[in-house]
Amino acid sequence: MSKLLENATNELQRLPGIGRRTALRLAMHILKMEPDTVDSLSTSLQRLRHDIRYCRSCNNLSDSELCPICSDPKRDRSVVCVVEQVGDLLSIENTGQYRGTYHVLGGVISPMQGIGPSDLKIDLLCDKLLTGEIREVIIAISTSVEGETTLFYLLNRLKAFPDVKVSTIARGIGFGDELEYVDELTITHALINRREIARD
Amino acid sequence: MSKLLENATNELQRLPGIGRRTALRLAMHILKMEPDTVDSLSTSLQRLRHDIRYCRSCNNLSDSELCPICSDPKRDRSVVCVVEQVGDLLSIENTGQYRGTYHVLGGVISPMQGIGPSDLKIDLLCDKLLTGEIREVIIAISTSVEGETTLFYLLNRLKAFPDVKVSTIARGIGFGDELEYVDELTITHALINRREIARD
Repeated sequence: MSKLLENATNELQRLPGIGRRTALRLAMHILKMEPDTVDSLSTSLQRLRHDIRYCRSCNNLSDSELCPICSDPKRDRSVVCVVEQVGDLLSIENTGQYRGTYHVLGGVISPMQGIGPSDLKIDLLCDKLLTGEIREVIIAISTSVEGETTLFYLLNRLKAFPDVKVSTIARGIGFGDELEYVDELTITHALINRREIARD
Repeated sequence: MSKLLENATNELQRLPGIGRRTALRLAMHILKMEPDTVDSLSTSLQRLRHDIRYCRSCNNLSDSELCPICSDPKRDRSVVCVVEQVGDLLSIENTGQYRGTYHVLGGVISPMQGIGPSDLKIDLLCDKLLTGEIREVIIAISTSVEGETTLFYLLNRLKAFPDVKVSTIARGIGFGDELEYVDELTITHALINRREIARD
């Protein structure tokens, strides 16, 4: 095989979810693309990796000091939603329903992977709370063992701010999920947190 | 969303089989990769597109004038396997069973897509046959309508070389295919081309 093709295939294969066959198919497609399109693809990947910055207020990915959300005057600065990673922030943004700001921890506490509280942006969150501007902290981190550990640690740290309301997003059966295939823990939580239907 | 992330996601989405979600997942992964790895990925794609050449003997992808197969003294130059595209060549190479050379047509005759015989490397094949070195031509093109058209056109051109043996690869039931799910045309061919089992 051509060394150039071999090389490109090997490099593409390092990406997650891309095996040998897919990498080869992508490489063959790239051969048929306009040279300019290939250049702009390549450049966008390099620029993404080299030029990206993290918002100094919320740790979101950003092109400048403050991310587009933190610098948007229309966002409600009194509510902060704490998420593990930028992907979670994007999922919430996609709903178009949330008008507050975020705080990206950059992971969860995981002794197995050597990630302790000091590796996460928890101090940055507390610094923001010290300004007194924030009224509510919504914690939206996963229900994994690591997520729960992080939740308890956060709740402990948030005790220093008794005037700030703290909430977590609701757990329950997702829309479109079939009860038959939902795990027991989710069903248990959904039962405990059942809502009464007003009858009149 | 960060413009850099948005850009990279849009560019990745142009690749075949990569939707918005996958593009975003890949971009997020790229953010976590070593900068050097991202550079070598980018560079390999650009070099693939800009520096690739086509073998002047067989039209295979190549890094130089002659592809690795045509310049390999151990390959049998008296047998040529005609394929549509480089992907087909790679599939045959992967079997490790073929020791002859190839000829890549670069497509099939398709009036619908405006591809005529002159758009394919058929003259180049005939030029090679004129040297008298080639003993057999194996035609390994697909059984689509366009493939069959191309086959008939090729057979016609090959009439000019009556001493050259011409064959096509066998059609039949693939190993592991369940008869229940094989199409009728394949079963018909498999029946017609049945092989007697020696009984002694």
